[in-house]
Amino acid sequence: MAEVQTQVDFVSGRTRLFGIVGDPIEQVRSPEMATFELQRRGLDALLLPLHVRQADFDRAMPEILKIHNLDGLIFTIPYKARALALAQEIGPQARAVGALNALARRPDGRWAAEIFDGIGCVEAFRRRGYGLAGQRVMLIGLGGAGSAICAAVASEKPRTMRLFDLDGARAEHMAAQARAMSPATEVSVGPPTVEHIDILFNASPVGMLDDPRRPIELDRLPPELIVFDAIVKPERTPLLALAEACGCRTVRGREMMNGQMAKIVDFFVRTTSPAAA
Amino acid sequence: MAEVQTQVDFVSGRTRLFGIVGDPIEQVRSPEMATFELQRRGLDALLLPLHVRQADFDRAMPEILKIHNLDGLIFTIPYKARALALAQEIGPQARAVGALNALARRPDGRWAAEIFDGIGCVEAFRRRGYGLAGQRVMLIGLGGAGSAICAAVASEKPRTMRLFDLDGARAEHMAAQARAMSPATEVSVGPPTVEHIDILFNASPVGMLDDPRRPIELDRLPPELIVFDAIVKPERTPLLALAEACGCRTVRGREMMNGQMAKIVDFFVRTTSPAAA
Repeated sequence: MAEVQTQVDFVSGRTRLFGIVGDPIEQVRSPEMATFELQRRGLDALLLPLHVRQADFDRAMPEILKIHNLDGLIFTIPYKARALALAQEIGPQARAVGALNALARRPDGRWAAEIFDGIGCVEAFRRRGYGLAGQRVMLIGLGGAGSAICAAVASEKPRTMRLFDLDGARAEHMAAQARAMSPATEVSVGPPTVEHIDILFNASPVGMLDDPRRPIELDRLPPELIVFDAIVKPERTPLLALAEACGCRTVRGREMMNGQMAKIVDFFVRTTSPAAA
Repeated sequence: MAEVQTQVDFVSGRTRLFGIVGDPIEQVRSPEMATFELQRRGLDALLLPLHVRQADFDRAMPEILKIHNLDGLIFTIPYKARALALAQEIGPQARAVGALNALARRPDGRWAAEIFDGIGCVEAFRRRGYGLAGQRVMLIGLGGAGSAICAAVASEKPRTMRLFDLDGARAEHMAAQARAMSPATEVSVGPPTVEHIDILFNASPVGMLDDPRRPIELDRLPPELIVFDAIVKPERTPLLALAEACGCRTVRGREMMNGQMAKIVDFFVRTTSPAAA
């Protein structure tokens, strides 16, 4: 018989598995992005969508972790805080934020956790060549992504950090976390401003999808300001549109997402490697 | 920024998952073959290797089945019998053999089981155009694959079936199963022979890998005999080499494997489709 191609080349019995766990799961972008990144590094590995429902999570997850060729997981909504119970080692960012988004199996079988939303944001700045050390930053929004950005930016040791969230207690809590991470940084809580600010971060949902609003009530921004928006859709948010019109440099949510994906895959590779034992 | 390709096209958040469960798992061929077959039919689906260890199987499997976008599993060594406990509906072949190799989630959430080793063998004969109905068959070896071949061949209503296994009780048990599946077939138990036989099936391990032996002690075979060997490695077993030298038609283990893969994917598609509800 003539040999016809009856198989694919991206999965075999030796393929190592990674996954993203969420509920719902259809909208996630990690499978195509992280799988590309894993395979670009020469790994025989896939990252799969794993739809685990909320009623099943606590009993099912510890058993799913027993799949012996499963090496790591990303956690998304609504599991970023709940997944901490699965980790035996919790990284400094995850500890500050009280949530994780990546879990990787060490060679000794222990599961290590870290959160990379903020690290991805810092990576996006690094790729642009925009340093954070010594800068004066304003951060609007301290929800899931915002608190992670707060912790990661604090780790870069800016000169000052001003934090704002509609939930004042939340803002004070993250201010304390930021001070603990970078004692030399002057951290304050207060309404959005660009006075004495070098870099403005938006991590609030204001401007998402069809929302025409900006998270800061100004019609002009100083052209030397760098403006970041964590929102992915639309890519050019009302805030970023104003910033561009004013001649500011900008960093987009998609750049943070790309930076995060690279850093998560770094974490997977580093943690699972025998050298990490 | 220029858009560079940073994603793969064979997995996304909407991809449906299938798996093969075994211990060990590295040697399995289903991931590349079944994934090809699923995607050839236009499904956004993958079949993954799932390494579940024996000590974990009973607790982990019911929880793994809760992954909500997991639609079906293949079970291989050592789980074909043990996995029956996971099924709410057991097909006629699986019932006769006391084992399954495929489990699929019905739209109502119930898991349906069947075994396709033997069905794959019958499919290989069908693809060659060799009928089994009304034929006189000899089957050597009634282990995992052999008992499934016995049940599937019996379903095709051959005229006579002669069964042989080193374990005589096993042979008598499968003879009873064959009679139940095809009351009009004359089923007997006895040593390997090609007298009054149209089709010879080998499902014993004799001739596997470097074993130079044949499962039947003959130096010549009648040229009108059709000879099947379930062994996949080597592809041309000592028995098949003799058969070819004698001018017999042959069917190889790889053809059974291909037939089985197609039939398992049929089962996955049919069972999970809303029409099966």
